[in-house]
Amino acid sequence: MGSDDVAGVECPHRVPVPPARPFLDTFRANLKETFFPDDPFRQFKQEKGVRRALRALQYFLPILEWAPSYTFSFFRADLIAGITIASLAIPQGISYAKLANLPPVLGLYSSFVPPLLYAMMGSSKDLAVGTVAVPSLLLASQLGKAVSAAEEPALYLHLAFTSTFFAGVLQAALGLLRLGFIVDFLSHATIIGFMGGAATVVCLQQLKGIMGLVHFTTSTDLISVLESIFTQVHQWRWQSVVLGVGFLTFLLTTRFLSKKGSLFFWISAAAPLTSVVLGSLLVFASRAEDHGVEVIGHLKKGLNPPSLTYLIFSPPYMMVALKTGMIIGIIGLAEGIAVGRSFSMFKNYHIDGNKEMIAFGTMNMVGSLTSCYLTTGPFSRSAVNYNAGCKTAMSNVVMAVAVMITLLFLTPLFHYTPLVVLSSIIISAMLGLIDYGGAIRLWKVDKVDFCVCVGAYFGVVFGSVEIGLVVAVVVSILRVLLFIARPRTTMLGNIPNSMTYRRMDQYPGAQSIPGVLPLGIEAPIYFANVNYLRERIFRWIGEEEERLRFNDKASLHYVVLDMGAVTSIDTSGISMMKELKQSLERRPIQLVLANPGSEVMKKLDNSKVLDIIGHEWIFLTVGEAVVACMLHTAKTGHMMENGSSLLSADSNV
Amino acid sequence: MGSDDVAGVECPHRVPVPPARPFLDTFRANLKETFFPDDPFRQFKQEKGVRRALRALQYFLPILEWAPSYTFSFFRADLIAGITIASLAIPQGISYAKLANLPPVLGLYSSFVPPLLYAMMGSSKDLAVGTVAVPSLLLASQLGKAVSAAEEPALYLHLAFTSTFFAGVLQAALGLLRLGFIVDFLSHATIIGFMGGAATVVCLQQLKGIMGLVHFTTSTDLISVLESIFTQVHQWRWQSVVLGVGFLTFLLTTRFLSKKGSLFFWISAAAPLTSVVLGSLLVFASRAEDHGVEVIGHLKKGLNPPSLTYLIFSPPYMMVALKTGMIIGIIGLAEGIAVGRSFSMFKNYHIDGNKEMIAFGTMNMVGSLTSCYLTTGPFSRSAVNYNAGCKTAMSNVVMAVAVMITLLFLTPLFHYTPLVVLSSIIISAMLGLIDYGGAIRLWKVDKVDFCVCVGAYFGVVFGSVEIGLVVAVVVSILRVLLFIARPRTTMLGNIPNSMTYRRMDQYPGAQSIPGVLPLGIEAPIYFANVNYLRERIFRWIGEEEERLRFNDKASLHYVVLDMGAVTSIDTSGISMMKELKQSLERRPIQLVLANPGSEVMKKLDNSKVLDIIGHEWIFLTVGEAVVACMLHTAKTGHMMENGSSLLSADSNV
Repeated sequence: MGSDDVAGVECPHRVPVPPARPFLDTFRANLKETFFPDDPFRQFKQEKGVRRALRALQYFLPILEWAPSYTFSFFRADLIAGITIASLAIPQGISYAKLANLPPVLGLYSSFVPPLLYAMMGSSKDLAVGTVAVPSLLLASQLGKAVSAAEEPALYLHLAFTSTFFAGVLQAALGLLRLGFIVDFLSHATIIGFMGGAATVVCLQQLKGIMGLVHFTTSTDLISVLESIFTQVHQWRWQSVVLGVGFLTFLLTTRFLSKKGSLFFWISAAAPLTSVVLGSLLVFASRAEDHGVEVIGHLKKGLNPPSLTYLIFSPPYMMVALKTGMIIGIIGLAEGIAVGRSFSMFKNYHIDGNKEMIAFGTMNMVGSLTSCYLTTGPFSRSAVNYNAGCKTAMSNVVMAVAVMITLLFLTPLFHYTPLVVLSSIIISAMLGLIDYGGAIRLWKVDKVDFCVCVGAYFGVVFGSVEIGLVVAVVVSILRVLLFIARPRTTMLGNIPNSMTYRRMDQYPGAQSIPGVLPLGIEAPIYFANVNYLRERIFRWIGEEEERLRFNDKASLHYVVLDMGAVTSIDTSGISMMKELKQSLERRPIQLVLANPGSEVMKKLDNSKVLDIIGHEWIFLTVGEAVVACMLHTAKTGHMMENGSSLLSADSNV
Repeated sequence: MGSDDVAGVECPHRVPVPPARPFLDTFRANLKETFFPDDPFRQFKQEKGVRRALRALQYFLPILEWAPSYTFSFFRADLIAGITIASLAIPQGISYAKLANLPPVLGLYSSFVPPLLYAMMGSSKDLAVGTVAVPSLLLASQLGKAVSAAEEPALYLHLAFTSTFFAGVLQAALGLLRLGFIVDFLSHATIIGFMGGAATVVCLQQLKGIMGLVHFTTSTDLISVLESIFTQVHQWRWQSVVLGVGFLTFLLTTRFLSKKGSLFFWISAAAPLTSVVLGSLLVFASRAEDHGVEVIGHLKKGLNPPSLTYLIFSPPYMMVALKTGMIIGIIGLAEGIAVGRSFSMFKNYHIDGNKEMIAFGTMNMVGSLTSCYLTTGPFSRSAVNYNAGCKTAMSNVVMAVAVMITLLFLTPLFHYTPLVVLSSIIISAMLGLIDYGGAIRLWKVDKVDFCVCVGAYFGVVFGSVEIGLVVAVVVSILRVLLFIARPRTTMLGNIPNSMTYRRMDQYPGAQSIPGVLPLGIEAPIYFANVNYLRERIFRWIGEEEERLRFNDKASLHYVVLDMGAVTSIDTSGISMMKELKQSLERRPIQLVLANPGSEVMKKLDNSKVLDIIGHEWIFLTVGEAVVACMLHTAKTGHMMENGSSLLSADSNV
């Protein structure tokens, strides 16, 4: 029985079975779509010889692309932006190094070599490279489990370099293997919750500095930290508290004012360095370091010493460094990529995620050999860079030169800088990361995302950074799996004056067709949902039959499945289709498919299930399918009632 | 600008924003759809008082439903089927108990109490309850890691009961909590590979019995087993090998013949018991047990002794029992549910998975208190039951009575049964589980499923049963995640003589529309794919613009996204839509949406992104969207060229 027979009218739209393609072709195409969706080598393919090599070099070193057209007006803009971020980078670098329990000078080293590398290899024009709070904290908490920074500072330092090296290897490997999409599994909601939690934890940790405490827990969870603070009330130092609260108020005020206008922006950008200078002068003048206000002390002069020989590649410490490296590498990558993407979006240029990963990876690998610890593109510093009007990655070079000058000549000036000022700088930066507005927006738009966010937040605050991350990723993945395991099925109705069929619950005007049940299946049919779908389809049929019986209308003869959203199917799904067809045949109800995609058609054909369903019962649209059903009823309706139609051969079951 | 303005003609089909529903309503509806998709309590709701209680009792004890209408002709059929499966159950029960390193009589105990319980609570008419090979093997390998069955038989036995108890608790809990869909994550492909691997391993293990070896490895992997066999070549006993090969040939021949006709079916069904009888007589006559042929020996007479006091709920052994219970519980459940579903499909009746789980769970919990170990619905025995013409679960009662008679009076007859016959029975049953035909079909239809299957097989054969299972489940889940992470995007074209738009790669006749790019997105938009989708959409636009430039046609002004398959979206997806709109506006290209579902519309509205995109640029179908674009071009086309149209306000970027 051909489709023309069924429909009785001309029905030119057949759903074709795609021609068989050699397995290797399909495999290669899928591989390309999975790992090279952006087709990065398209630009080389057209070139030849030397030009091709040059293009390839430009691909890996974007500086070769933009340097030839670099102008003086660009340089002026980059110079201003570079000096601005340097004034932020120096105090922040020292602060974050303290947060990681590392010598403060490492924060300066880390703002010298990595920015230079990024300027050559990075494709973002706005990213300002430097150390970041969350990975610094993670480094401290992870390495702190194995080695005490206070008791074995040399071993701790070497492990920090080794972790950075592994983080760099991981980052570069992800980029080279085109596995950048792993970072995508950290959703926006995860990052809001995670960052908020980490910021809370970092702020709490800084209470150590503000209170002037000497002994403090190495745990990061809320309860340990509060316990540590309130069991030592008698150790609180008022000088420290006064200084801390004063500078914090100053920093927060300038940050609040920075939104008011461009003048205030510059004040806010300079505020951290101003605090450092003021604090140092105050301590120097009042000799406060003799009254319990801790200061940075001696900072070694000179550029980054080499640290290749410090890397530890032997057990038992290597595993700790490896694990730490994996965690900080992923977190650093996630922040850097997200920041780069955001600013490229503002300025409408393209960033290649995998290329960025290679740049970050190289930067950290080389960094670990030159006494730097983990660097990435911190949001706060990049935002200042962007607002200060940077044009290219040259602003990173300017910052590196400014840091170099500091390292060579100005380190003695930081001798009297009180630690409490550094704590204030960290707290003020961290408070900006707690995005409660974002969390409220999540609640309004998507409750599951809100749960992910809150899960990440409480995981970090009450458990640890890893627990928070695992909670968020697991909830996110469960949501995807649940979407697959419990796909929505909807009854479709005819939109008046058209051949279009849409969800009856969405379009109140849509009309049902007696005797025909059009159902939409809104997910691919996979092993995880075949049993659910089978039961749900039978429940739809049962409910529809009951409704028809109640209304004394014609009985149900056709079930039309709209396969438009069934973009993929596996062998369990194919078996389900076959069983569905066989069960329906016994009732007798005709199974009709509308708009199956080429993958579905191919698999139905390969598994011979197409022959069981019948190619003549597969239509391009639900509308055409319903018309065909109605014409078929008109032709065979009288036979149906006698139970002797073609369809009801098995009706005695 | 209203849609009528854009289209210029009447355009009655607006995509409505669904009305806001209270959060708790949505939550309750989603919960119901997730956990009660079959609406199991619908039947009670209409009833009242005593009838309602009776209905509820019938729900939990299906025997109350079918017993009142039970007839003598049903009983005759069930009697024949019950005796047939008993003749299979007795030798198989003893064999599998040996496989689990448990006293052989446990196999008989386990075929007495659990079938009676299942007959009351089970909803399948064809399932024959009994012990199964794979969980027996798992029990031996898992418990064997902690306790040696040879050295501490009592402790081992008690751990087996405790594991069975935990398995029962898990099964019942999954059923009561309506978490039955967890079993669905064991896909058809996983089960083919896993069963094949387990069957291979079990067969290899049985070489111990066939060769008459005394010492043997407790590991289950291929390499350990082959090593164990070939390092003991001098220990092989020819008497044992001859007997084993002989009976195996007999069993396989009858099994092969059973497909030829109904007479042969009865021969095949009786073959195991025949082998046992023949083997016992042979040993008794030839006194072969003195020549190295091991026999079962003394079997205790009498019914199941209670075993409540044997359960171990204290460390360190409880954890072993708990872990073993979880594994064998899930595997047992998967096999039982799959078997029940298959036969219900043949006979066209409904099975409630969650109810079945409660039945299995109760059966195993009570079983563990009456000296039984894990039972489920084995495929081979149920198939025999079905083929022997069983009508209801009464055949299980008949089998239980037959086993009871054996336990009370006939156990001494098994004294001389040689172990090698039991090995032959196991091997012959296991060879039927290696479904290489199924694996070939998987390769033809779906390469990923084939990988899952092969992964499970090799995981089991070269690693362990758990490794195989983990490999298969991880690959299956990765496939689902990859589907989400890399959704297909396709260019749509107009099917001639219609308003329908379909994939151009699937429908070779589909025609493109100059200046309009209709794209289909074939998956929900989630955090895991937003970056990919953004890049891929821009690549489509870039390629289309290049193609148009090359052909000197009009430039691209509209991108129509077919959202029909975007059945869900999260906040990351919403942000992506917003960024996409803003980036396209700068080029300037108009973003148009076709056929968004109600969830997408609701979230676009809640997040205010709907206002940014413009409700007037959202259409019911791709066809209507394209018409509106063309009319809009006709109206504003001349302005476009001047770069001063509404769209190109930002075109100077």
